[in-house]
Amino acid sequence: MCVRRCVITVGDLGEFGVVTRITGRLPQGAAVMLGPGDDAAMISAPDGRVVVSTDLLLEGRHFRRDWSGGYDVGRKAAAQNLADIAAMGAVPTSIVVGLGIPADLSLEWLDALTDGFGDECAVVGASVAGGDITRCDRVVIGVTALGDLGGRAPVTRSGARAGQVVAVAGRLGYSAAGWALLEADAPADSPALLEAVAGHRRPCPPYAMGPQAAELGASAMLDVSDGLLQDLGHVARASGVRVELDPQAFTIGEPVALAAKELGADPLEWVLTGGEDHALAAVFPPEVRLPASWQVVGRVVEGEGVAVFGREIRRRGWDHFR
Amino acid sequence: MCVRRCVITVGDLGEFGVVTRITGRLPQGAAVMLGPGDDAAMISAPDGRVVVSTDLLLEGRHFRRDWSGGYDVGRKAAAQNLADIAAMGAVPTSIVVGLGIPADLSLEWLDALTDGFGDECAVVGASVAGGDITRCDRVVIGVTALGDLGGRAPVTRSGARAGQVVAVAGRLGYSAAGWALLEADAPADSPALLEAVAGHRRPCPPYAMGPQAAELGASAMLDVSDGLLQDLGHVARASGVRVELDPQAFTIGEPVALAAKELGADPLEWVLTGGEDHALAAVFPPEVRLPASWQVVGRVVEGEGVAVFGREIRRRGWDHFR
Repeated sequence: MCVRRCVITVGDLGEFGVVTRITGRLPQGAAVMLGPGDDAAMISAPDGRVVVSTDLLLEGRHFRRDWSGGYDVGRKAAAQNLADIAAMGAVPTSIVVGLGIPADLSLEWLDALTDGFGDECAVVGASVAGGDITRCDRVVIGVTALGDLGGRAPVTRSGARAGQVVAVAGRLGYSAAGWALLEADAPADSPALLEAVAGHRRPCPPYAMGPQAAELGASAMLDVSDGLLQDLGHVARASGVRVELDPQAFTIGEPVALAAKELGADPLEWVLTGGEDHALAAVFPPEVRLPASWQVVGRVVEGEGVAVFGREIRRRGWDHFR
Repeated sequence: MCVRRCVITVGDLGEFGVVTRITGRLPQGAAVMLGPGDDAAMISAPDGRVVVSTDLLLEGRHFRRDWSGGYDVGRKAAAQNLADIAAMGAVPTSIVVGLGIPADLSLEWLDALTDGFGDECAVVGASVAGGDITRCDRVVIGVTALGDLGGRAPVTRSGARAGQVVAVAGRLGYSAAGWALLEADAPADSPALLEAVAGHRRPCPPYAMGPQAAELGASAMLDVSDGLLQDLGHVARASGVRVELDPQAFTIGEPVALAAKELGADPLEWVLTGGEDHALAAVFPPEVRLPASWQVVGRVVEGEGVAVFGREIRRRGWDHFR
């Protein structure tokens, strides 16, 4: 019986073997003019401006290897950066990845992680153009995404004006519901509950809605990474306005509603304060006719802060140091 | 007496306080069209192609807080990425930084780190355009640098041809000498030895020589991050050639020579195998008249591998998993 020795690890391959292994699994998209293997990659930037966003994900803080497989971690790490690019109104072209991994990490986990990066990029026609690998006692992932605006003006957080409407695209509350199910060790014994858990492991950002919102004339936009209330607080502050949300206007997804029932929780709290779904929240002039992908959930008024139906809510969400 | 409580820490400020603190210390260069504070930054890419490189630096593996202050760590982290951009023949425009830091990290250290990033970027006219911050029990730094080729073709590792010459620009062996002095706890009691130690803490890449080499017609180039022999091995492999170096052709810096004498070490070994100086190594057609910034140290012939004066050298350098 060999249990330990049959697992091929990163240490068995060595650094250059690992790099070859990873790059061999990653097809390159059209925007990548020079891929992995040199001091730097070269990416097409036809717009003459490049949009760039970076995030650091740490095992134990942003993901747990006992809760999420390598594939889900890779997809999630890529997704949260690609969503940042979409939230500017841009189309992602590529990501580069800095990876810290233990020598005893199984090659199977690393392959799954690599495939997760690649597959999430493929959703938007982007690819993994390069990276860096080093040894670490836990998994550390630094993802940087690049994107192209295709001539559009970037949609920032500071353009919201009183009289405009607030709308969301994509899922809200799924990741929080899935996290709560996992933490409670609750049996996810229905398709809906499984979907909530899957939503925690792997977000589904509405990438195409970012450039769509820019073309529709969105005045402000961001992706919901720390919770809708907290993130709209950034828009309110940057724009010098107040955001008022109508709790009745939110459609609560069936997986979120069922998980809340299962755990005796408030599904609206997950929708309003749950992070990591990477939905898009945008502000539009009132005359814009919004397609069905955007759901109006509130309005912009004079003032400051974020309120839900006239009631001040203490902003909740993540502060990594508190 | 308050010793502990008088140190203001990252945890005292909280995440958003820290972000405000950091961004307040970072002036933005001309290429940054949209800086920190949104989902993504926007960088000018006039060439229509963007060069991008990323690296992950971990406390304990890539730097030690007892050997290097925050300022040196910031400069080094920025330098190694900016050098990658220069090694493609491009001019760096910006970096973005993913930062993991402990809650009990002093604000003084963080300020110094921030200034180190900013000052190293300023050397090349670039700036820190954005980032991400999270909590970690040790300092983790993910740096991604972007650059613009200004119409030049990128200089890769694969263009070296038999009959061409190998040249280096910048320092070699300084970081290895400084590391050896620090590890031996040797007294750095002369300006030269202090310079070696400083060279370990903070490299001085010859940034301008990258675009210069591209304009001179370099056929291959990289920055020396893992040791000259190992890195030229990448050029030999990618180009399908053999590199022969003349050990007599290297100028050994006085700090390197003195440190070697102090420790009874071989200075040429540090020059040939020491990493982290981020010198540039390039291959030029023989007819190119090289300026004094480039020192010819070898030639390209048919074959494979890297040899020093006809003798095979077992490639030495870093493998992060062995």
